[in-house]
Amino acid sequence: MPYNHINQDLLNTITDIVGADSVITGQTEIENYSHDETEDLIYYPEVVVKPQNTDQIAALLKLCNANQIPVTPRGAGTGLAGGALPVNGGLLISMERFNRIIAIDEQNLQATVEPGVITEVFMNAVAEKNLLYPVDPASKGSCYIGGNVANCSGGPRVVKYGTIREYILNLEVVLPTGEVIWTGANTLKYASGYNLTQLLIGSEGTLGIVTKIVTKLIPRPTQDVLMLASFASNEDACAAVSAIFRAGVVPSALEFMERKGIEWVIEHDGIAFDLKDDIGAFLLIEVDGSNQDVIFGDCEVINGVLEQYNCKDVLFADSSAQKEELWRIRRTMAVSVKSNSVYKEEDTVVPRAALPELINGIKQIGGKYGFSSVCYGHAGDGNLHVNIIKAGMSDEDWNNKLKDGITEIFELTISLGGTLSGEHGIGLVQKNYMPLKYSDVHFAIWKGIKQTFDPNNILNPGKIFN
Amino acid sequence: MPYNHINQDLLNTITDIVGADSVITGQTEIENYSHDETEDLIYYPEVVVKPQNTDQIAALLKLCNANQIPVTPRGAGTGLAGGALPVNGGLLISMERFNRIIAIDEQNLQATVEPGVITEVFMNAVAEKNLLYPVDPASKGSCYIGGNVANCSGGPRVVKYGTIREYILNLEVVLPTGEVIWTGANTLKYASGYNLTQLLIGSEGTLGIVTKIVTKLIPRPTQDVLMLASFASNEDACAAVSAIFRAGVVPSALEFMERKGIEWVIEHDGIAFDLKDDIGAFLLIEVDGSNQDVIFGDCEVINGVLEQYNCKDVLFADSSAQKEELWRIRRTMAVSVKSNSVYKEEDTVVPRAALPELINGIKQIGGKYGFSSVCYGHAGDGNLHVNIIKAGMSDEDWNNKLKDGITEIFELTISLGGTLSGEHGIGLVQKNYMPLKYSDVHFAIWKGIKQTFDPNNILNPGKIFN
Repeated sequence: MPYNHINQDLLNTITDIVGADSVITGQTEIENYSHDETEDLIYYPEVVVKPQNTDQIAALLKLCNANQIPVTPRGAGTGLAGGALPVNGGLLISMERFNRIIAIDEQNLQATVEPGVITEVFMNAVAEKNLLYPVDPASKGSCYIGGNVANCSGGPRVVKYGTIREYILNLEVVLPTGEVIWTGANTLKYASGYNLTQLLIGSEGTLGIVTKIVTKLIPRPTQDVLMLASFASNEDACAAVSAIFRAGVVPSALEFMERKGIEWVIEHDGIAFDLKDDIGAFLLIEVDGSNQDVIFGDCEVINGVLEQYNCKDVLFADSSAQKEELWRIRRTMAVSVKSNSVYKEEDTVVPRAALPELINGIKQIGGKYGFSSVCYGHAGDGNLHVNIIKAGMSDEDWNNKLKDGITEIFELTISLGGTLSGEHGIGLVQKNYMPLKYSDVHFAIWKGIKQTFDPNNILNPGKIFN
Repeated sequence: MPYNHINQDLLNTITDIVGADSVITGQTEIENYSHDETEDLIYYPEVVVKPQNTDQIAALLKLCNANQIPVTPRGAGTGLAGGALPVNGGLLISMERFNRIIAIDEQNLQATVEPGVITEVFMNAVAEKNLLYPVDPASKGSCYIGGNVANCSGGPRVVKYGTIREYILNLEVVLPTGEVIWTGANTLKYASGYNLTQLLIGSEGTLGIVTKIVTKLIPRPTQDVLMLASFASNEDACAAVSAIFRAGVVPSALEFMERKGIEWVIEHDGIAFDLKDDIGAFLLIEVDGSNQDVIFGDCEVINGVLEQYNCKDVLFADSSAQKEELWRIRRTMAVSVKSNSVYKEEDTVVPRAALPELINGIKQIGGKYGFSSVCYGHAGDGNLHVNIIKAGMSDEDWNNKLKDGITEIFELTISLGGTLSGEHGIGLVQKNYMPLKYSDVHFAIWKGIKQTFDPNNILNPGKIFN
């Protein structure tokens, strides 16, 4: 169905709904909302609004639904799959003013927050009460918790504490038709009706706009140990991953980093790091808990495993500052890679024992197509972020042949029991690869669900599968 | 849409699909499939089949879809909400022959099982490999894992290890149209498309028939301590629950049992138990882990909390046999109550700090309507099973007025931030209460989803919301 443009009448009504100071139409300011962190894609919305409450969003969606205006909800714009790009123009709803932590309920270990709260701000607020919200994407310092819900975002600590699905209890959602519902109840579990909370998580803003989030919290562990293990090869490092769990230990983080990633972090961020010549890859391993003996015991077990997998050296962080420094290396890796080259990021996930085969295969495919790659990610979850680097590839090959190489990467991922995207979502840039994994039956079901929520396809069209 | 009956032609085709020895039509044998564990409801299917593979189920559903025959999938028949009752007659598909543990993948800490595997059989099989599948409903000795998926079943250990949603990675499903899909990937997480795995969990056999299940496993804790704390009143016991978590401890089980439940277990099962006159309620508390000092430390913290909440006495189980005996009391409580009275079971769930208010309110509502009740359940999750006992109520009041009392119980539950059913599902017997919590918008979305999967409404019709 063709979309309409926002004419002056509609703009007046929009302005009436949110107030003049919450409407942006000027080209300079609107530019900020034309891109996210996905490569260099730019799509301009016609109008940006910054609503402040649920009623305003309901009124906006009702208006757009009645007038066939596409609507793109946007969190912090840190997405890596183009999910927040307004590919059909129309109205962009920025959630930046939904930034209140409404309540931290210490009786029930729950919190109610608005979706525009920065994830780390929320984590710190609950930490002050000795509580943990463990879903911490690398971009936690800038991303919004609402974006995390929309993209089913992960992070290092999923490996021990479970996915975001375990921590989101209830959502207030404005549907594309302007109706407002709570998806479930403020309870740790429920079994009544198809679970709309879970359906909304990971729906990338295509089914509704989340306006309140109720989260589960857990007691905060009091101690942790962080170690950096170095290996000669990617394969050795990756092979050690599943062995650690088989030894009976569940670390609170188990991150893989390729040598090249560290090199670029050193170069880009000026971080002092003694990178030895014979090291090809690293595992960053954190063990947390509330008892030092247990943590040390787990570290001993892990050390024993690492030795069996040709680990060259293990550095134990000996201060908070050193821990922060090691984490900074991991977290800034994406930005460092981006600032060093033309790149494309792909997000792969496999059963964790398949990691060695995955990373070797990626390198072979790179050799065939002429691209290099920098890989890192949440190895404990089998989740590898693959940054494809243009390097010596010709523009023509980059623009035309690379997609065949990416297709081969995903075919390999799928053949190993995995799928596209562990935690970045499909958005705009991965949707053409979806048929590699999913059949017409999946697409028909997804479209049927979308149609149920959004009969006029106004909400974030052009994403995931449509 | 009216349904058709299974005529001789259809019966012949059904017999061709599954083989004559897998078809039951005789009234005596079919009686076994006419009820589950829900009160005394009886609905006869026209034909029962016991297929052995996915292809047979696909052919059966295709046939029934083309001929507008209602189909009811059935696990072990241990459900408490009538979800497996063939209310429209038609074909009942028993999953009892899908009883193979296909693979326990120790490399990836995953397993692939058929849905007709008894939950405890599966738990024991993975325990032999020092692994844990922690979702253990009270009926684990007889229920099927497929039924657990369909009902989003819980159990005591959800409180520490998370819900079944965290442990089901991927599902092979036959859709009502006969098409077969895998819902997702064999990975610990993924963010690609609306999550059909999560949508199927808790859909009570209305969206598809699950034929294979891929589960996550975790390392098995090596030790546990089990204690039984006694209190003068329900309120004291319930108030202690949320305080334990606030003190920073997450027990591996935290079960509430009312005095009356224990009395009936003693009477029904002849279990020796010294039930003191001044005790009104109990908490059964388990702490597990792999380090004795940590477990004992947690028990000390818990003890400190219990003292503050007027705990009368704490019994520590001093042997495996005593642990088993205490767990047996909790697990047989439902059966004991059933065998002692005409009853109705309701499943309520609230934020856990609201438990005292919930249980007091239930007793008050009972006083108003003249019913007594026996309450027990997974207090750590805020999940209270309410067994309503006919006792001195007249038949007329039981048949006509009780539903107003149940309505009041659910209204109270909802007003406390909770909902109907923490883990038993809605099935047949709770569906009339659903409008207390959910709006027309929820129903419209659920019906739209149902329509997408099952355009002719042949699969388990008459359940949850339709």
